[in-house]
Parts: sequence; C-alpha cells; structure tokens
Amino acid sequence: MDELGAIKLLSRKLDIGDDCAVLGVGKRKVLVTTDMLHEKTDFPKWLTPEMIGWRSALVNLSDIAAMGGKPIALVIALGMKKFDRKFLSGFSRGVAKCCSLYKCKYAGGDLDKHDELTVVGTAIGVAELPISRAGARVGDAVCVTGTLGKACYYFKKRKWLRQKPRINEGMKIARRASAMMDISDGLARSLHQMGKRSRAGFKITFEKIPLFGSEDGLFFGDDYELLFTVPKSKLRKIKGVKFSVIGEVVKSGVWIEKNGYLRKLENRGWTH
Amino acid sequence: MDELGAIKLLSRKLDIGDDCAVLGVGKRKVLVTTDMLHEKTDFPKWLTPEMIGWRSALVNLSDIAAMGGKPIALVIALGMKKFDRKFLSGFSRGVAKCCSLYKCKYAGGDLDKHDELTVVGTAIGVAELPISRAGARVGDAVCVTGTLGKACYYFKKRKWLRQKPRINEGMKIARRASAMMDISDGLARSLHQMGKRSRAGFKITFEKIPLFGSEDGLFFGDDYELLFTVPKSKLRKIKGVKFSVIGEVVKSGVWIEKNGYLRKLENRGWTH
Repeated sequence: MDELGAIKLLSRKLDIGDDCAVLGVGKRKVLVTTDMLHEKTDFPKWLTPEMIGWRSALVNLSDIAAMGGKPIALVIALGMKKFDRKFLSGFSRGVAKCCSLYKCKYAGGDLDKHDELTVVGTAIGVAELPISRAGARVGDAVCVTGTLGKACYYFKKRKWLRQKPRINEGMKIARRASAMMDISDGLARSLHQMGKRSRAGFKITFEKIPLFGSEDGLFFGDDYELLFTVPKSKLRKIKGVKFSVIGEVVKSGVWIEKNGYLRKLENRGWTH
Repeated sequence: MDELGAIKLLSRKLDIGDDCAVLGVGKRKVLVTTDMLHEKTDFPKWLTPEMIGWRSALVNLSDIAAMGGKPIALVIALGMKKFDRKFLSGFSRGVAKCCSLYKCKYAGGDLDKHDELTVVGTAIGVAELPISRAGARVGDAVCVTGTLGKACYYFKKRKWLRQKPRINEGMKIARRASAMMDISDGLARSLHQMGKRSRAGFKITFEKIPLFGSEDGLFFGDDYELLFTVPKSKLRKIKGVKFSVIGEVVKSGVWIEKNGYLRKLENRGWTH
C-alpha cells in the first residue's frame, strides 16, 4: 500500500469517502462506522457525563442514518484518567438513552486508562440500499432535513442540545435519494465533501435554508441533519419527512445566492 | 442504568463477559469487538509503525478467533499528534498485512489529532455457533493452542513477534469446545477470567504447559493463543489444530501442580 493509499484509507471519514463502510453479510448489507472523540476538541468543560455519552452515541448513529441504515448495535471504547463511577454511570445512561430510541443495542466495549478523556464509538447497522455521497447528478434537487444552526446558536450560550440522529428520516429518504450524508461538520463543508465525491457542484439559495440564528450556523456543524440530493421527479414521493429544498446540483463549484447576489461558499466548517 | 450496571457494561472486556458482543443479523450471528491501545501501555518505543499496525489488527482479530468466528472487517480510529505520512504508511501496511491473511477487509476508519498515539480497532466477524467463556464444566479437559511465553521471552530482548490470531484454529475448536477465550493477558489471568464466568475452577500441571522460556510467561500475556475447555470424549474430534491438554476443570479455585506440589495460581497478568 503506498502513502497516498494509506492516508486515503485511514481518512475515509475526513474528507474522502462515505460515512460508513459497507460490507456484505449473507444477503444483507452491513454498515460499520467509527468515530474518535476527545476532551480537547469535542467535549467542552460544561458538558455533563450524560451529554458526553449521548453525543458519543449520536455521532455514530448519525453516520448510519446518513446512508439510510438502521442501527443494530453500538460498542464504545472509553479511555479516562481515573475510572470515576459517577462519570461512568452518567456516561452509560446517556449512551443507552440515545440508543434505546432506535432499538439499537448498546453492546459494551473497552475501558482503558488514558490521560485525556477519549471515546471511540463504533456502530453497526443494516441497510437494504445504502446511499453514498457519490450519486448527485446535475439537475437534482438539493435538500436538508429539519433546521440548521441550532447547535451553533446554543453553543455560544454554553448549552448543548440533545439532538437526535435522523434514523427514521434517513431510511425514508434513502428510497428516493441519489446521494446523502449527515451535516455534522456544517452545511458548507458537507456540500464541498459531497461535491467532491459526486464530481459535481451545488447552487443553493440562502433564503431557502431553514436556518436558526446567524449565518455562522452554516459553518459550525453539530446539527446532525441530513443533506441529500434527489431527482426532482421523485421529490413528492418522499413522505413523512420534514425537509426543505435549498437548491440544485450544478456542474461544479459550490455557490450560494443571497439577496439575488451569487458568491462562492467557502469550504470551512468544524475541524476535528 | 445503575452504576454497577454501567461499569459492567463498559468493562465487558476487562474482567467480565466475553471477547465479543454477539448480535443477530438475519439468520447470522455477528460478532463485534473493540480494543483501545495507546502508546504508554501498548506500544514500546522500539516498535516500528508496521508492527504497531499489525498489533492493532491482531488484538481485535484474536478476539474474533476467541469465540470461533471468522473476521469480515476491521475499522480503525487513529489519534496522533501530527499526521506523519511515513508513520501512516507503515501503520496501514501492518494492519492490511495482518487482515489479508484472513481475507478480512480493512474498511477504513477515522483520523484525529490526539496528544498520545491512540488506536482503537473494531472488528466484525461471523460465527455459526459463537463459543463464550462461560461453558466450562467440571471434568472437561483444559487445553491451549501453540506455545506460550514467546512474547515474554522476546519482549525482554526488545523484540516483538509478528504473532498471528488463531482464526482457523478457533473455528475448528469451536465445534467441540465448551468454553474458549484468547490468552492475550497471560494464562494465569485468563484462567481466572474463564473460571469466574463459568463458575468453575481449574487444576493444571506445569509440566504439561507448552512453555517457551521462563515461568514469567504465564503472567505476561501477548501470546494470542487460545485457551479452551472441551468434554474429554470430544478431544479426539478436534483435528488439524496443534494443542496441548494442560489440566482439567474442577469445582473452584485455580490450581497449578509443579514437581508434584500443588499451589494456587495467582490472578496476575498484563494490565492495560
């Protein structure tokens, strides 16, 4: 394996590739995703142990949702300085609560001494037809679920929302979508990532984005909504999901129109 | 979830429980295991990046072997201070080489900045009939594959062996065994762990242990051989595996006989 191959493989979750690896087990497609979180980057001091647990489950289940999958199990490796019973109790409760919403089994993991609080979750899911980031076609509608920017707005007030992974939405959208991913790193970065993988571009309209709070929300991430593209003829077939059409797939570049003016949308967002 | 439940759940790999979580996917049994390794405890300075990669794959595949499974995929979350291309290249080569011996797919993972080199691997496997640590019955034969103590012997000389997970052996043994686990923490600790889970004890004979080097090897671990129990009537049915019968399952306690003298075998081994 050469150097570039090594980095590509290891960084599959950074900028290249999809949210999950897809495996065949018998006739089933099994999805696997892993995420490393740690104190410095991911857990502000004011987060409670239960919130840390919830967040650790959320990021992984959201990656399963991103491909239209149904989570079946989550394992967690936890490294910490001292095994604090109160922390472990709150942490596990947070993980278990998030998992139980989706009947996902919290199946144990590994405990290890580590100077910095470090959490690595790995989720396993199943999908009939996993949707990758690579299928966006020129002319498709660009859509997002729910509302963006809430996490950014509340983070500034030192609040962290107990957001939900869009599992049910993802499964419904997957039947019609040409490409999908979660918006964990912010809409701007997500559009760039999907564009790169699909070899396409996007033109979105600011006024159509279901944005809560300031424009910063486009670059902040932590929203865990889904970004997806879908042939316009299939838009009406997506039922039971709250989503907004914010633009369309174009040949190249990521463009945003605001007050009738068009500009490039920077590739900037949450950096882990 | 109460505190004790939380700790039990999180520490499933420490002292309680099995090497893998077992899930049903359709008609298949899917095994999942995760292991956190980091520089201070697991990677002595003289280990090359390729060895670090190999070891990271090995510990996880060995947990699949421990339950009689066949590995299908491995994902790795890697945290390091600076993304060093040379390290990443060697590391990935090590992971890929170990996986390829067993046709296990190295399916990517996550890259993250972290002060201490931290590797969390998660392996997925399948098994027709996963063997747990809990089935040892009084009168069963106690057996180990291969030779123990090599890792200890060479570690003292600052050498690390490229050991292999006992995948093929585990699959063959699983058809007959009553309980099984890998010996990653040393024979002494493994016997105590299996005894606790099976609510049984062991009496082994020092002279029957296929030991390389000194008695320290019983307490060192890092050997990745398999410890298993099997009804004596089925011993002959295990074919194509090199193993030794070292004792038998008794009601309680972990006992070792040497030169005709019996003593208790301490619960001491590799601590992560």
